[in-house]
Amino acid sequence: MTIDNVLARIDQNREAAVQRLFDLLAIPSVSTDPAFAKDCARAGQWLVDELKGLGFDASLRPTAGHPMVMAHAKAKRRDVPHVLFYGHYDVQPADPLELWETDPFKPHLSDDKQRIIARGSADDKGQMMTFVEACRAFRDEQGDLPCDVTILFEGEEETGSPSLPAFLAANKQELTADLMLVCDTNMWNKDTPAITTMLRGLVLEEVVIQAASRDLHSGMFGGPATNPIHVLSRMIADMHDARGCVSLPGFYEGVSELPEDIAAQWRELDFSEKDFLGSVGLSVPAGEQDRSVLEKIWSRPTCDVNGILGGYTGKGSKTVLPAQASAKFSFRLVGQQDPDKVVASFRDFVKARLPSDCRVEFLSHGASPALTLPFSSEALARARRALHAEWNKEPVLSGSGGSIPIVGLFKKDLGIDALMIGFGLDDDRIHSPNEKYEMSSFTKGARSWARVLDALAG
Amino acid sequence: MTIDNVLARIDQNREAAVQRLFDLLAIPSVSTDPAFAKDCARAGQWLVDELKGLGFDASLRPTAGHPMVMAHAKAKRRDVPHVLFYGHYDVQPADPLELWETDPFKPHLSDDKQRIIARGSADDKGQMMTFVEACRAFRDEQGDLPCDVTILFEGEEETGSPSLPAFLAANKQELTADLMLVCDTNMWNKDTPAITTMLRGLVLEEVVIQAASRDLHSGMFGGPATNPIHVLSRMIADMHDARGCVSLPGFYEGVSELPEDIAAQWRELDFSEKDFLGSVGLSVPAGEQDRSVLEKIWSRPTCDVNGILGGYTGKGSKTVLPAQASAKFSFRLVGQQDPDKVVASFRDFVKARLPSDCRVEFLSHGASPALTLPFSSEALARARRALHAEWNKEPVLSGSGGSIPIVGLFKKDLGIDALMIGFGLDDDRIHSPNEKYEMSSFTKGARSWARVLDALAG
Repeated sequence: MTIDNVLARIDQNREAAVQRLFDLLAIPSVSTDPAFAKDCARAGQWLVDELKGLGFDASLRPTAGHPMVMAHAKAKRRDVPHVLFYGHYDVQPADPLELWETDPFKPHLSDDKQRIIARGSADDKGQMMTFVEACRAFRDEQGDLPCDVTILFEGEEETGSPSLPAFLAANKQELTADLMLVCDTNMWNKDTPAITTMLRGLVLEEVVIQAASRDLHSGMFGGPATNPIHVLSRMIADMHDARGCVSLPGFYEGVSELPEDIAAQWRELDFSEKDFLGSVGLSVPAGEQDRSVLEKIWSRPTCDVNGILGGYTGKGSKTVLPAQASAKFSFRLVGQQDPDKVVASFRDFVKARLPSDCRVEFLSHGASPALTLPFSSEALARARRALHAEWNKEPVLSGSGGSIPIVGLFKKDLGIDALMIGFGLDDDRIHSPNEKYEMSSFTKGARSWARVLDALAG
Repeated sequence: MTIDNVLARIDQNREAAVQRLFDLLAIPSVSTDPAFAKDCARAGQWLVDELKGLGFDASLRPTAGHPMVMAHAKAKRRDVPHVLFYGHYDVQPADPLELWETDPFKPHLSDDKQRIIARGSADDKGQMMTFVEACRAFRDEQGDLPCDVTILFEGEEETGSPSLPAFLAANKQELTADLMLVCDTNMWNKDTPAITTMLRGLVLEEVVIQAASRDLHSGMFGGPATNPIHVLSRMIADMHDARGCVSLPGFYEGVSELPEDIAAQWRELDFSEKDFLGSVGLSVPAGEQDRSVLEKIWSRPTCDVNGILGGYTGKGSKTVLPAQASAKFSFRLVGQQDPDKVVASFRDFVKARLPSDCRVEFLSHGASPALTLPFSSEALARARRALHAEWNKEPVLSGSGGSIPIVGLFKKDLGIDALMIGFGLDDDRIHSPNEKYEMSSFTKGARSWARVLDALAG
């Protein structure tokens, strides 16, 4: 079998691959600090050169911020899928420097040679190079790639990707592909791969309730004058029913139950709800009754108040009956929930509870849908088999509680679904001192991508 | 009748009385500004001299702040009641000066001679001098007072009476009396006197709810992690039932219904709920259903949140699930409600709604009972008849939504009930530019006190 040769090639090239990664890690491409702008461009150029060496038509594309790396390579076979691989070459600042045991930009192996230690080793240089090394092995072994491949590496992910939307809009044609591949997520644990198939969406709404025309003395007016904090608290309390479900009419439209095989997989994961909550000082699961904590985070929608403010909040007391109270709400969405419908239902819900002599102002801070790779997707089935073959374990089909804006952007602007396969671990200390990436993640990650590309080509 | 001669004497002395008040008003005894400390002492000394001239044993008593004026005069008759009259000689700052049409400390009459214009004319120099002028008329006319009289004028009322508690404690014996008289409140309107018989008490409680040990990411933890803003909002919402009543168990213990004659009097007052609420931009009465606005403010207890804070409250959004949320509650108490019981019931109520993995911290910012002069009080009956005789109208037995800490202090420390009769009007602009006191308030106020003293003596 060809793929075995490709995998063997990856194993043989391991030392050289690590050295290449070290070269990239040595470039301090900190995107948030203008002092490192040249280093960002240098990291981009390093990648362009690297990809050119692999036969890619690669170039550095300027943006208003740090440049993009864009590269294309076509397979000799026609009728193969076209994948778009996304990664980012920028890294978080290394501060606080004094907490690093070694220079963050002098990459090295741990004494036991099991870990690559440097800023960006896991987030995201090590991860993205797993894909590049997989491509290299195909080139070296068979002078061809199994799929048409477009690569996009950006240099601003750690600062919120400010140049990406305009770049996507300007290069729609060139970025069009059948499937997006992303290597910026974690495995379930060191031995168990994971495919993230669900990212929760996010609706952000702020509400300002205005009652009296000015702050009142609570002695003079307390009783007959409406207190907007009470009005707001009633709305917040009404937002969940006694079973912990969100009470907005129609809120659960588009929310599906998990397929039984996925539900069974999650039940059998070695996940301790006690430890998860205990790590932040909690012990009683909140939210929907009869749902596991993993379900709640990965596949169930929520409503949370992220901030509330009204009246006097300094030291001591003030007998004020405030004119105004405000709260910031966030809704995490899943499945096919429609963000616009959630916003409309929320606003109706608030207005229905507003006394007729009060006013309400709504501020929208964003609304994006959940991103779900259908469990029935053929690409997902192939990736699952490929990862199983590599790790000898069924990959966990996980969700992610938070949103990943880039994936949403590609879905919205280019209509491309994403297959998110990453080899990070929870203890990689990304964004923190002494960031590391497991050698097994790096090597078996490259082997995993080789298998996935092979499987996708069919 | 002797009292007619006394009243005639007041009328004859009117011009001299106004001139004396002008002398006092010309002293800028602004208590909050150290630049006026000497003026405060000067105003106190002026009053000592004045009272000595009326045969009082008067002296200026130093405190840590501005001095107290203390004066005693015994009636020749024995078996007469001993009254303690309280007033304050300090005034609010005159700022903003540019909004005064005339110099705030150059007292003068309006062109039609109907109003005395100066800082302190209504609050409280004009009001307290009505009592002094009543005493003078008795002295001048009959060389005696109808009651034993102790007078206490303080110079720090406008700054919260910081020296008063220690002064009361140190001079308990000397301040003991049968009844306290206070002239620092308003009439119902220009033609209708009022006796304030109910001051609402005040319980101030702050609650801090702690959930997780640190702020959490609402994507990572939203759903299974308890949101303390939700917990707090539920508590606040539960604090009132659907009829607008406070839900704390036992809260209404000690709250009595108004006697029917008082209720009837209030119903017939020319009070517009629409105008009252409309003045602050509201139109729908909140609070207990089936209670009038006047009842709600004067004779019903309340629960209000005066401040709430939790999570992110800056501009835009932050997907934080806060560790902590807090709120400041105030309870206005009436009748015989026990502040300690209210505090206990409130804390039990909060604890009963606290998830078992959350913690709560309570901060007390004070707890004082309502002050009620019983409707059955003989002194009240006499004062009502006296005021009726002067104004030819039944005095309104009003409540006051706010507390008057001084009255509470005397009740608590000396056990003395207070008869609060004042001649201020809502449009006197106390604490504001162009403060005034009606000439009719001043003259008929003095006549009213003469009648009240005479009536109390029986």
